[in-house]
Amino acid sequence: MAEDKNASQSVQRQLKLGIVGIGVGASEILPAMEQIPEFKLVAAADINPRVLETFRQRYGAKTYDSVEKMCVDPDVEAVWVSTPNKFHAPHTLIAANAGKHVVVEKPMAISLKEAEQMIEASIKNKIKLLCGHTQSFGPHIRTMRKIIRSGELGRLCALHVWAYTDWMLRPRTAEELDVNQGGGVPYRQGPHQIDTLRLLGGGLVRSVRGATGQWFQGRPIPGYYSGFLEFEDGTPATFMHNGYGYFLASELVPWGGQNIRYSEAERAAIRKSLLDGTRDENADKDEMRIGGAQEREVRDRSKVKPWVPNDLGILVATCEKGDLRQSQYGLFVHSDQGTKDVPLIGGGGPSRRGELMELYNAVVLDKPIRHTGPWGMATLEVCLAIIQSAKERKEILLSHQVPAPEED
Amino acid sequence: MAEDKNASQSVQRQLKLGIVGIGVGASEILPAMEQIPEFKLVAAADINPRVLETFRQRYGAKTYDSVEKMCVDPDVEAVWVSTPNKFHAPHTLIAANAGKHVVVEKPMAISLKEAEQMIEASIKNKIKLLCGHTQSFGPHIRTMRKIIRSGELGRLCALHVWAYTDWMLRPRTAEELDVNQGGGVPYRQGPHQIDTLRLLGGGLVRSVRGATGQWFQGRPIPGYYSGFLEFEDGTPATFMHNGYGYFLASELVPWGGQNIRYSEAERAAIRKSLLDGTRDENADKDEMRIGGAQEREVRDRSKVKPWVPNDLGILVATCEKGDLRQSQYGLFVHSDQGTKDVPLIGGGGPSRRGELMELYNAVVLDKPIRHTGPWGMATLEVCLAIIQSAKERKEILLSHQVPAPEED
Repeated sequence: MAEDKNASQSVQRQLKLGIVGIGVGASEILPAMEQIPEFKLVAAADINPRVLETFRQRYGAKTYDSVEKMCVDPDVEAVWVSTPNKFHAPHTLIAANAGKHVVVEKPMAISLKEAEQMIEASIKNKIKLLCGHTQSFGPHIRTMRKIIRSGELGRLCALHVWAYTDWMLRPRTAEELDVNQGGGVPYRQGPHQIDTLRLLGGGLVRSVRGATGQWFQGRPIPGYYSGFLEFEDGTPATFMHNGYGYFLASELVPWGGQNIRYSEAERAAIRKSLLDGTRDENADKDEMRIGGAQEREVRDRSKVKPWVPNDLGILVATCEKGDLRQSQYGLFVHSDQGTKDVPLIGGGGPSRRGELMELYNAVVLDKPIRHTGPWGMATLEVCLAIIQSAKERKEILLSHQVPAPEED
Repeated sequence: MAEDKNASQSVQRQLKLGIVGIGVGASEILPAMEQIPEFKLVAAADINPRVLETFRQRYGAKTYDSVEKMCVDPDVEAVWVSTPNKFHAPHTLIAANAGKHVVVEKPMAISLKEAEQMIEASIKNKIKLLCGHTQSFGPHIRTMRKIIRSGELGRLCALHVWAYTDWMLRPRTAEELDVNQGGGVPYRQGPHQIDTLRLLGGGLVRSVRGATGQWFQGRPIPGYYSGFLEFEDGTPATFMHNGYGYFLASELVPWGGQNIRYSEAERAAIRKSLLDGTRDENADKDEMRIGGAQEREVRDRSKVKPWVPNDLGILVATCEKGDLRQSQYGLFVHSDQGTKDVPLIGGGGPSRRGELMELYNAVVLDKPIRHTGPWGMATLEVCLAIIQSAKERKEILLSHQVPAPEED
C-alpha cells in the first residue's frame, strides 16, 4: 500500500532506505516513512524472524538477519539505525564503511569515544551522518526556534522543561535494563531534552550540574535525572525527567487526559507485576513492535492527535518580551499582544517528518544537515555530563559543544 | 471589632504585638492577626501618617513614627518587622535590644553578616527570633512535610518548583527597585522557594548552582532566578521564578483562572505604563496598604479561596512511591492507590496562621521555634549563593546550613 501511494506521487527521486533494528523505535518512525513519498523502504535487518516476516509482507522489502548483510545490498542508499543503544556505534560504522548514509537514533552512542569514531567514519567514507530521533526535530520545537530566532520577542532569556512520564513502566528488553548498555532515563530521554534545549539556546552549553535517580525496585536502571545548564552566552536552563509515572505532566494541561498510555490503575498494576515478577515483559514489548496490537495504534494517523506533555515534557521558553510553550495543535505565544495560539511550521504534519526530510535534503539535494555527528556528540556530552555530575557531585564544564545551525 | 472578637473568646493569655512597617507585607498578615484570638495588636510604627491613622482607627492601637519609640512601649511584647528589606536587620536589633521578641519577614537580612548580628542579639537579649513570612509555614507545605516524614511514600527523592508570576508588575516603592536594598525577585521571592525546599528536604543544602536575570527595561531589578541545589543526602531540587508575568503558572491547573491579580490585558498595560513612565506607582501601592481598596479585598476572608500557583509556584515532591503536589483545597497524593485529594493540616485555615502560632507557642508556651535565626540565615545563604553563582558562573558550596526541626 505504501508502495502504491509512493508510486502514485510524482517524486523525482526516491531515497532507498534500509532499517536495522525493527523494534519500538522503528515502529515510531515507520509510519512517517510510509507517508513521505520521498522515501522507499527497501530492506530491513533484525534478529527477530517474526518482525522481519511482518516487515517483508507489509513493505515488500528485502530482509536480512544481520546488518552486515544488509549493508552489502547495493539497493540500500541509507541506513536507519534503530538497534539497541550499545549497537548504535558499531552498526553506524558498518554502514558508513559500506558507503551508506546513516541516521542513528538517540543516544548517538554510549561514549564520546564511540561518537568520535562515528564522525571519523562518516568523513572518511564521505557519507551523511544524521543524529536523529529527538524531539528537537518536531514541529513544536522548530516553530519555537523560528520565533526565537526571528527576534520578535527579543532575545532568549531562559528555558525550563518538566517531564513526568510513565517511561519506566513501558515494556523493556534485557539490554534496556542495563545501564552499561545505555539503559535508563538519562541515556534514553536526556537526548530529547538536551537536544531541544541546545537547538533553542544556540547549541553551546558551557556547564551542567545534574543529578540522576533510581528508586523503584522493579527496575535496575535510573528512572530520573534533573539539572541546570548554562549556555556560553549566559542563558540558563533547568530540566528534569521523572519516568516513574505517579504524577504525569500531562495533568498540567487541560486536554492532558487524552493519549495517556496507561491509566493510573494500569500503572499501579504494572509496578506491582514488575515487583513480583509476574509481568510478561517480552509479550508486552512484542505488542509494540511491527505487527503488534499497539503498533497498529501508533500507525493510525487517520487524525492529527493533539500534543500532550510527552517524553520531552512541558517546555517554557522565555524571551525578553514573551513566553512560548506547546499548545494542543500549535504554540502558545504569551506576549503583550495577549496569548495567541500560533500554528506550527508545515501545519504540524507527521511528527517524525523533520528528521526524514533532513536526511533526504542532505543526500538528494546536498543541503546541510542540522543534526550532524558533531551536533549529536555535543548533546551526548551534556547527557554524559549529567551522569558524571551526579556521581561526582559537582558542576561539569563542557568542551565538545558546537553551535546550532544558522539556517532554519 | 477585632478587639471585641478577641475579648469574646476565652484565651488565657494574649500576646501583645507591635508591628513596624505597615506596608503591603503587613496588609497580608494583619487579617490573620485579627482572626487569631491569641494575639492583640497594641501598637504600630511607620513613617506614613495615613496608614498610621487608619491603623489607629481600625485597631484602637497606639501608633509611633519610629521603631525606637514603639520599642520603648512596655505594652509591646513582640515586634513584627515588615519594613523594607534594608531595615530588617537594624529594626530587629532595636527590638531585640529593647527585650522584645521579633518576627522578621523574608528576606531575614541583606547579608549574612547582618543575619549573624541578629542571631547574636537574640541570644544576648534572651528573646525569641522567628524568621517568618515564607510559604513554608503554609498548610500545603506543612501537610506535604508531614506526609514525607511519615514515610508512607518512602524516602524523598526529588523536589521541583516552577513559579511564573506577575511579581514584577505589582506596584513598587523606590527602595524596592534597588537591588542593593534587597530589591528584586531573587531576594524577595527566593526565600519562599528555598525555605520550602529546605523544610521538605531536611534543611542541609550542600551546594547550589543558579542564575539570575533582568530583562524588562521598565524595572531596574532582577525579575528572574533559577537553579539546581543538592542536599547533603544527595536529594536534588530545581527551582525557578520568573516574575515578568507573560505566561503564568496558574495556567497549569484547571482552576488557575481564579484569583488572578491582573488580567493579561492589564499586565500588558502595566508594562507599557512602566516603560513610558505614566504609571502612578505610589497611588497603586497605596491601594494595597491598610485602608486601600485592594487591601480590603485581601482582608475579605468570608470564604476560603482555592489555592492557585502563587508566588511559591507549583511544587512537586517526589518520593519513592508517589508524588505530592498542591490541589485546590488540599494536596494531591499520586501513589499506587491512585490520586487522592488529601485535606490540609488544620483544614487549611488562615494562610498565615502557621507563623503566628509558631511565635505564640514559643513566647507563651516556650515551645521550640522551627524558623529560628540560624534557620533563616541558612535560607538567606542559599539565596545569596544563587546570586553569587550567577555572577561567578560556578557552583557554590554552602557552610551555614542547619537541619530542619525534628518535630512537626
